[in-house]
Amino acid sequence: MPVSKTQWLSQEMAVAKTALRTAYERETASVVQSVRKKASEISHIDDLWQLNDYLSARRFDLDGKYDDREEEVLFVLAKLMKEGWLTAADLDGLDSEKLTKMKALIHIL
Amino acid sequence: MPVSKTQWLSQEMAVAKTALRTAYERETASVVQSVRKKASEISHIDDLWQLNDYLSARRFDLDGKYDDREEEVLFVLAKLMKEGWLTAADLDGLDSEKLTKMKALIHIL
Repeated sequence: MPVSKTQWLSQEMAVAKTALRTAYERETASVVQSVRKKASEISHIDDLWQLNDYLSARRFDLDGKYDDREEEVLFVLAKLMKEGWLTAADLDGLDSEKLTKMKALIHIL
Repeated sequence: MPVSKTQWLSQEMAVAKTALRTAYERETASVVQSVRKKASEISHIDDLWQLNDYLSARRFDLDGKYDDREEEVLFVLAKLMKEGWLTAADLDGLDSEKLTKMKALIHIL
């Protein structure tokens, strides 16, 4: 979902990219923790294939999710806030117009 | 690799199928153990994707491997012996012709 007509200053884009990295680290650490827990509970071969499916789904999701192109990044940041991987403090430095758009997106998502 | 012209009596096929189940249980138990170990060593997201690849490969391998059709089963049993999932004792009840063919296959594999 491209959010058009949003102009990004280079220092704002730097804030956005740092926020993406932060969210990625938080989300991937959570997936690592989740997999370690799931793996410790494995007792049967079917549990392995469930873990395999879970990993494939997370991989697919993460591969496409952290899109830092200008036309996508506001949507991506809003989604990450909605999911709890970012807080308002992580986006300190973005202008009020972007923050307003993001709040609107969060309600829509 | 179909091994043709091998006739199977029903009691021999029963021995073969029991051996396949035994091998499957041994091999899958080994994969479960291996995954639990690998999972306990995970610390980074890349380790997860390596585990994902390992699981996908094992799944693909196991899905195609335990073929109990008459024209395939001698080859499958030979492969499982070669890999150490079966011993000669597991195949007690097969006639000497099949055991001889199997030994030859093990040397070829």
